[in-house]
Amino acid sequence: MSFRDDGAAAVEWVASYLERLRDFPVLARLEPGQLREALPPSPPEAAEPFAAVLRDLDEILLPAATHWQSPRFFAYFANTGSEPAILAELLAAGLNQVGILWRTSPALQELEEVTLSWLAQLLGLSDSLHGHLEDTASTGTLAALAAARAAKPDARAVVCSEHAHSSVEKACRLLELQARPTPVDEVFRLRPEALALAGACAVVATVGTTSTSSVDPVPAIADACQRAGVWLHVDAAYAGSAAVCPELRELFTGWDRADSIVVNPHKWLLTTMGCSALWTRRPDDLRAAFSLVPEYLRVSEEVASLSEFSPALGRQFRALKLWAVLRCYGREGLQRAIRDSVALAALFEGWVRAESGWEVVAPRPFSLVCFRRDGSDEENEALLERVNASGEAFLSHTRLNGRYVLRLAVGNARTTEADVRLAWDVLRREAARLP
Amino acid sequence: MSFRDDGAAAVEWVASYLERLRDFPVLARLEPGQLREALPPSPPEAAEPFAAVLRDLDEILLPAATHWQSPRFFAYFANTGSEPAILAELLAAGLNQVGILWRTSPALQELEEVTLSWLAQLLGLSDSLHGHLEDTASTGTLAALAAARAAKPDARAVVCSEHAHSSVEKACRLLELQARPTPVDEVFRLRPEALALAGACAVVATVGTTSTSSVDPVPAIADACQRAGVWLHVDAAYAGSAAVCPELRELFTGWDRADSIVVNPHKWLLTTMGCSALWTRRPDDLRAAFSLVPEYLRVSEEVASLSEFSPALGRQFRALKLWAVLRCYGREGLQRAIRDSVALAALFEGWVRAESGWEVVAPRPFSLVCFRRDGSDEENEALLERVNASGEAFLSHTRLNGRYVLRLAVGNARTTEADVRLAWDVLRREAARLP
Repeated sequence: MSFRDDGAAAVEWVASYLERLRDFPVLARLEPGQLREALPPSPPEAAEPFAAVLRDLDEILLPAATHWQSPRFFAYFANTGSEPAILAELLAAGLNQVGILWRTSPALQELEEVTLSWLAQLLGLSDSLHGHLEDTASTGTLAALAAARAAKPDARAVVCSEHAHSSVEKACRLLELQARPTPVDEVFRLRPEALALAGACAVVATVGTTSTSSVDPVPAIADACQRAGVWLHVDAAYAGSAAVCPELRELFTGWDRADSIVVNPHKWLLTTMGCSALWTRRPDDLRAAFSLVPEYLRVSEEVASLSEFSPALGRQFRALKLWAVLRCYGREGLQRAIRDSVALAALFEGWVRAESGWEVVAPRPFSLVCFRRDGSDEENEALLERVNASGEAFLSHTRLNGRYVLRLAVGNARTTEADVRLAWDVLRREAARLP
Repeated sequence: MSFRDDGAAAVEWVASYLERLRDFPVLARLEPGQLREALPPSPPEAAEPFAAVLRDLDEILLPAATHWQSPRFFAYFANTGSEPAILAELLAAGLNQVGILWRTSPALQELEEVTLSWLAQLLGLSDSLHGHLEDTASTGTLAALAAARAAKPDARAVVCSEHAHSSVEKACRLLELQARPTPVDEVFRLRPEALALAGACAVVATVGTTSTSSVDPVPAIADACQRAGVWLHVDAAYAGSAAVCPELRELFTGWDRADSIVVNPHKWLLTTMGCSALWTRRPDDLRAAFSLVPEYLRVSEEVASLSEFSPALGRQFRALKLWAVLRCYGREGLQRAIRDSVALAALFEGWVRAESGWEVVAPRPFSLVCFRRDGSDEENEALLERVNASGEAFLSHTRLNGRYVLRLAVGNARTTEADVRLAWDVLRREAARLP
């Protein structure tokens, strides 16, 4: 095998894939088990060439992929694996650094620290926060809540809005804390007057909830947390990247008062999957929860390893892709990507508002539009299924005040006005065809 | 930016790096904070070309890297980021799949299931086990112990050998379980007669401990677990890959009786970082511990998502690199890599045994040699520091029965007899120079 030849073929494969993104049905069209049946039941005895991997990628795996890179992916929170991030993953894999101690990769650890400081600055946060990367916001939130529990051992509740992400409840289950969902107001924001902080070790405030991208009233929550001595964790996994734009900064008022903040560059900041930032102004509490140095890892350097702030021991070189993104876009390029998403979502929102028989059902602070067609839940659900089955666009849903609601999330940097227009055309076409 | 041009430059960078591996000091030579100072304190305003990232990678980051890819890396457990794995990371980044539900990437989920079945078969495990990938063994062990806790809620202890990996204690801290380290015998194996299972929800048996690669007596432990109704987790993070060789299978007797098993292909099976396999024969218990489906993720398919068995929600396409490795090496190639490591370690062990003034201090079932030079702990520690400071090889240490011990772990597939010979020469040279 020649690495250069296979590498050239792999780059060509990715380049070609990125050019063909609009040619694929966005949501995979196959039945559960179908891919499994198309793959050999047992591994090969002898080596196969890398070309065979590429061939099967085209013939077997691509038809089983849901195309997150497609400009017509509007489900959940759309993301972008940008070109610099993709190539940085190649470089990181080539280097194969393993972060365990500082010495096992000073490059990994210090680049992670510097890149998190850069990102904090870009988002208007203090660069004195302690930052590190986890694979997902689930892990970051778990780490933050573990620190909160350790800091207040007798308080076993975590207060959050009923619209908080499921990862909060998942972390609570793992930590044996009681998740205490709190009612929201008419636009899906946690009601600060409903906060019951007795027995709570933490509050999770969300800036950009999953269902509607609503923004909890962080300043009032921060006041309450401060009075009660309760850890404030801000989950801005999706929306946090928008703070790179000064004109959107207002939505983040007070988040700098949090004890910990999670933002996912792999969601809306052009970074490939597996890049979730966690900042804290209480690193000692994180370290108290996670630090543990066995003899075989004892060294002379007096520098804490990032693994002492994190549930796992070994770390991948996740910072490299984020660093490449921040450099190859610059503040201006990142702002442009966010503004484009917001503008396209605003456009779509306008179309829905202007069309009779359709309704926007939640405010749109960022790039997510929640809407529905007049009619029953079943009709809206059937509409979504028809749109997704068309392969022309992929949207997802939620339920608000008991009603089935469609969600269109703009977040792929390759999405153009024509793509959003197409989604709207397909929605109206399929609505007209409903029985 | 042209993705093809930048991609060609990135491939060339990696190809050249892999050719130059013996040119770098293995352990990074710099002081804490030195890289941080060499990097700009703030991110750029405007976009920079990808070429600037490559330039800084060479000039600033490489001198701050500890070269895990070096054939002269013998510390901890040496690993290999093989060529197929590196290129598969590029492909996975290009696809940027996100596993949340089956439908968000059937390719990710079903390839992960199939690849884990393939790997189980290669290692002599049943292909009916439920398998999935985590980033590290820390997470896999955490998941297994969370399931064990859920399955036996009133039992709050986890029994393991005093040589178990620190991730067991870390998971226990997160889960608020009591880690109960149990004495080992004279060759560092858990003593089954010392097992105290009252109040225990799980036992962690290690096949290939971190300090010495000792193998706990799994059959006796499995018997005890079965009698007591206690979850048996087998940590074979390092050594598990060796089960691909029939002649080493004996060391794994009984591990197929475990309730869960963790093996890290990113350690000794040619896969880049971030690929840890977790199998269980009790998937329902894992699912009970982690499944949680909010409204915005409810779909019509009746197929469980892998995230229902795992602490995090979002999943990367980790299976692609493992699949590429299993195909591009085949069973034969994987066996060859393991056998080469074991043979080189045996050779080194022989040299140490034959040299007066040196001592092998633990059995060598796999590819890790624990040894020391006659003399004080301080002398051995000084010796290790001199060897590592030379840049010619990198070894690590542990402490056995209170004594400072050197560890030489062979596990990089690029390591040749000449590399091991060089390490031995450097060790003897530096020993002779000790004051």
